[in-house]
Amino acid sequence: MNSAIKKIFLFFFVCMMASCLFHCPVSLHAEGILGKLAKGEGKWGQHWKPIEMFRWWDPEHYFEPENKIEGVFEGEKCVICHTLTTPRIAIDWKESAHSKAGVTCDKCHGSDHQKIQLPNPDTCAKCHPEQVNEFKSEKETGHPSHARAFHPDVVEAGWQISKPQPEVAGCAQCHAVENKCDSCHFRHRFKAAEARRPEACSYCHNGPDHRDTECYTTSAHGVITALDGDNWDWDKPLKVGNYRAPTCAYCHMYNGTHNAVENAVYSHIGVEEIDRGAEEFAEKRKAWTNICNDCHSARFAAAYLRGADETVKVSHAKVREAKAVVEDLHKEGLLDAMPKDLARYLDEGHKWNLGGRMYNVTAIEREFFDMLVYQGTTIFKAAFHMSANLQTYELGAFKQDESLAKIKSEASKLRRLKSLEDKVGIKYESFDFWKVGEYTNSLKVIK
Amino acid sequence: MNSAIKKIFLFFFVCMMASCLFHCPVSLHAEGILGKLAKGEGKWGQHWKPIEMFRWWDPEHYFEPENKIEGVFEGEKCVICHTLTTPRIAIDWKESAHSKAGVTCDKCHGSDHQKIQLPNPDTCAKCHPEQVNEFKSEKETGHPSHARAFHPDVVEAGWQISKPQPEVAGCAQCHAVENKCDSCHFRHRFKAAEARRPEACSYCHNGPDHRDTECYTTSAHGVITALDGDNWDWDKPLKVGNYRAPTCAYCHMYNGTHNAVENAVYSHIGVEEIDRGAEEFAEKRKAWTNICNDCHSARFAAAYLRGADETVKVSHAKVREAKAVVEDLHKEGLLDAMPKDLARYLDEGHKWNLGGRMYNVTAIEREFFDMLVYQGTTIFKAAFHMSANLQTYELGAFKQDESLAKIKSEASKLRRLKSLEDKVGIKYESFDFWKVGEYTNSLKVIK
Amino acid sequence: MNSAIKKIFLFFFVCMMASCLFHCPVSLHAEGILGKLAKGEGKWGQHWKPIEMFRWWDPEHYFEPENKIEGVFEGEKCVICHTLTTPRIAIDWKESAHSKAGVTCDKCHGSDHQKIQLPNPDTCAKCHPEQVNEFKSEKETGHPSHARAFHPDVVEAGWQISKPQPEVAGCAQCHAVENKCDSCHFRHRFKAAEARRPEACSYCHNGPDHRDTECYTTSAHGVITALDGDNWDWDKPLKVGNYRAPTCAYCHMYNGTHNAVENAVYSHIGVEEIDRGAEEFAEKRKAWTNICNDCHSARFAAAYLRGADETVKVSHAKVREAKAVVEDLHKEGLLDAMPKDLARYLDEGHKWNLGGRMYNVTAIEREFFDMLVYQGTTIFKAAFHMSANLQTYELGAFKQDESLAKIKSEASKLRRLKSLEDKVGIKYESFDFWKVGEYTNSLKVIK
Repeated sequence: MNSAIKKIFLFFFVCMMASCLFHCPVSLHAEGILGKLAKGEGKWGQHWKPIEMFRWWDPEHYFEPENKIEGVFEGEKCVICHTLTTPRIAIDWKESAHSKAGVTCDKCHGSDHQKIQLPNPDTCAKCHPEQVNEFKSEKETGHPSHARAFHPDVVEAGWQISKPQPEVAGCAQCHAVENKCDSCHFRHRFKAAEARRPEACSYCHNGPDHRDTECYTTSAHGVITALDGDNWDWDKPLKVGNYRAPTCAYCHMYNGTHNAVENAVYSHIGVEEIDRGAEEFAEKRKAWTNICNDCHSARFAAAYLRGADETVKVSHAKVREAKAVVEDLHKEGLLDAMPKDLARYLDEGHKWNLGGRMYNVTAIEREFFDMLVYQGTTIFKAAFHMSANLQTYELGAFKQDESLAKIKSEASKLRRLKSLEDKVGIKYESFDFWKVGEYTNSLKVIK
Repeated sequence: MNSAIKKIFLFFFVCMMASCLFHCPVSLHAEGILGKLAKGEGKWGQHWKPIEMFRWWDPEHYFEPENKIEGVFEGEKCVICHTLTTPRIAIDWKESAHSKAGVTCDKCHGSDHQKIQLPNPDTCAKCHPEQVNEFKSEKETGHPSHARAFHPDVVEAGWQISKPQPEVAGCAQCHAVENKCDSCHFRHRFKAAEARRPEACSYCHNGPDHRDTECYTTSAHGVITALDGDNWDWDKPLKVGNYRAPTCAYCHMYNGTHNAVENAVYSHIGVEEIDRGAEEFAEKRKAWTNICNDCHSARFAAAYLRGADETVKVSHAKVREAKAVVEDLHKEGLLDAMPKDLARYLDEGHKWNLGGRMYNVTAIEREFFDMLVYQGTTIFKAAFHMSANLQTYELGAFKQDESLAKIKSEASKLRRLKSLEDKVGIKYESFDFWKVGEYTNSLKVIK
Repeated sequence: MNSAIKKIFLFFFVCMMASCLFHCPVSLHAEGILGKLAKGEGKWGQHWKPIEMFRWWDPEHYFEPENKIEGVFEGEKCVICHTLTTPRIAIDWKESAHSKAGVTCDKCHGSDHQKIQLPNPDTCAKCHPEQVNEFKSEKETGHPSHARAFHPDVVEAGWQISKPQPEVAGCAQCHAVENKCDSCHFRHRFKAAEARRPEACSYCHNGPDHRDTECYTTSAHGVITALDGDNWDWDKPLKVGNYRAPTCAYCHMYNGTHNAVENAVYSHIGVEEIDRGAEEFAEKRKAWTNICNDCHSARFAAAYLRGADETVKVSHAKVREAKAVVEDLHKEGLLDAMPKDLARYLDEGHKWNLGGRMYNVTAIEREFFDMLVYQGTTIFKAAFHMSANLQTYELGAFKQDESLAKIKSEASKLRRLKSLEDKVGIKYESFDFWKVGEYTNSLKVIK
């Protein structure tokens, strides 16, 4: 325990510091001085401006310190002040391995308080080169990957840029994983034991196009983890025998690798119609079966994977049946609005991109998008993560049955309207609201 | 340990009591003696009859004791009997602070067994006046609020009363929070440590118009709580430094206040198109930023809030685009059924109320309702609770894209049908099924 | 601790064994030797072929050992080898009651490694006859039941067989509960303490037609279990006083019975329009109220059940209103495609089955299916499991309002199109895509 006098001294010291802080303007940038935020980066850089949060989501490109506290602080000095101003950060750090190893605040944030920096993977690599190199090696291993999640998936994707940035902030928030290690290793403890838990992955891996959490938690693996996981020693490495049930990290970061893409069979072809039995996947599939083999027989694992592939194939057959119906409408000019009658796309103009757009399309095209991308991804992920409900019922096969029925009923109506109009001599021209409207106009601004 | 003889005595004593109980009719009221349940209260009192559960959901208005056990019991005497008849209630109470403080059953329920009462906030106020006063002060602070959740949100809302009461029982069950403290402090432990946990709030705060739980659990704050919360000391007060991550209660009941409305910026304008940057919110926003400031820099917090506001604004721009499409249909009389062709509303007759009705409307109006109220609320709550998926994907911005496409495709068909009918001389009159039907007729009964 | 020499010996022994294993073909069956998998069983046996996973989902009918390891192993000998080859299985077993009781691997799987068997309930009955007999007694108690989940619900259901088997693999995965005790008692611990937890039930009881988990977790019972369940002693039997809140097993396996159907009031009439107050349910309802009575007054319990029944009745009134609208379309031949214009059904040919089919139907019929089966089941299960949101909002009453609006708007359009076609002399014939398509054709193959 510190003495009372030391405490009083500290209190006044911190009050003085804090007083400086509170008298400075909260945000210079908000008043027009945008600094690095004035312009986006990448292929479409001239078309977009990042929202302020990009400072923290991509600090390497956008962060600029703005801090009135003067002085150079090192080691315990930072901790003393922050124990009073932001106590939890200090407490968390004190409970971290960093604290025990003498990695004080300044080691990652710098010591000049007016030039405070936010760490990026390179900062972490100074002490953890192996993990960061493995993480970065994902760029070579495949796509999608954590290491390429921000560039190109957010910053260089036409549809991301064409939409107002605040609308797609949710994308950037998670895809920032490329730029910062604390997406998984929550600050300021950064514990591997926490990052190993499926809850950590669930922060981003949920929802229609990343439905891994929902699939895992409804699988037998996930249920056993929910039942018993709190009794496990998550400090143990991700090695055979250490975990009663496989977790996200156990399989995808097998033996602790930080390249989570190498342990996956078909990460990039969830929604693509690709020959899933092709030779190119044989080796990956064998590696995968070896992981299953930690607990299951090789025969069981191989049979399960073959079954899951067949489940995905049926899903694609259903999608192709729907696709033919919509393509015929397009060919005959029968959509509610043809591509030329919709707002222009930033990247593809008026090109038709069935299944590639979830906005600025007609209802039947959006239904098809859902069927292919949202339901298709769910079926793929559910089948390979053993979720009975999600592959067949709720958002899977039987949902695709519904989309197929809706697409056919809509096609039927569009064709009947056309026949009637032809018969009575009406020439249907799509209504103006398809390309003009308050929100739709805001898409054009970025063109 | 009690002696065996004492136990045997108790057993026979209780059996005798229980025998009285089992020989009494289960419910007199079900046999026609409705008592206080004969008539609703409030503005529409003459139009509705509460279901039986209102006895427990609003005991002050509707509870009437009905108990054959005679006698006046106090202190341990109640506990002795209930330890055998309803053991868990007794065990829970024994583990409560009430037990330690000598607050026995009779203190809250009364001692005359045939006049047993259910406690309401005023009962709790006898010992906890500060908390109950804070809770009641919500009535002055704003709306919605826990303290006004039953009156006016349930009992005096026209649409609640126009629907059959058993159908909207789910509303009353949660909104009963106005009338009873055990909505959060689960009986019979009533532990603050439990009420502080987000699970307690999740009991009511879930689903399309109260989607706080889903938004919180998919935020970084929620994920850290899921990962680590079981290791926290929830007996600690809701003060800076005590919790590693903010919970519902940490921010909204900051420093332990039971007025959960005062710590919120825009609780009442989730779905309303209001100038979110207006002066009137400046002070609340500053107070809020101060809470964030417990862990985050003021600049970070302010930037996040500004971004969330922009996210909500885009959502409203999209809603307005859809609204214009539906309003034009209404103006030109082109809805599947115009308001006059639908069943009358209890409170507004045949007045058109776009976005204000989720039933007894046509498909395009319901789609608009979902877009504004369900998706709009989700986007608002997700943005301000930092859920990436819910603000942008699953039930947020991209769902609104779908609703917009559906609304336009539907409008397109309605217009084409009208042009065809005009051309061939058909005068479309909406079908009878719009205002007549087995369920729809049951709405009218309450008119 | 074993000595180092013993460890080295073991290592080489196991390597030798494993080497045999890895040199054998992974699957003979995949190369055309289908064995027991060549043909399905049951009424439609000649029409279908099980997928490979049926070996493990219904081992009694389909499992054939295929193992190159020669030899007969008993007791600890199995454990020695599997501690190295599949360590977690061995660790889990070591922590099981089986281990303590000397129930080694061979007791359930046999000792001849080339004739390894998978256990089924009869295997377990050798030591646990009471539990298995109770489980099997469900066959007489009612339907649906765990003990009849595979036959007839999967194997003998026409619609299950008419769909490609990989598509409905999710059904078989859970319904396999009929054939194996480890659906609830997760291998290789088989702990009752785990099977008692709601997480265990949640493995199967989720999703649109089994939405028990979602309903329970959003009820007060479920919330208390989430808040406090980790502090409970789940080794305690399912008896009054042992659990602070009721769980799935507490009520449905009351006092530990393995007949989970006997403790339910209307398990078979969730979606059926049956007189819920009928005499035949009176006794079951009374038994049920007795369970509630462990904690609640009989009056409270009876009132709640009456209210839930009324909630379900309103749901059915709404369904009947929609049904009349669709039936009128059918009567007048106005569906997008009439039953004769759809693909034939395996079991019912071209018979119309409104509400009985979720695929190979038109959009309005599917909407009706959702309204009756998915939303109706949700309302039923939510009302009786006390989920406020699910009975009224998200997927309940207000979702049915949406379906009703959609059904009426669709009916309106179908009728207007018909009037127009009649007027101008067009004879609408349903388009070919209704009965022909890549997926739809695959249904016919099994005809």
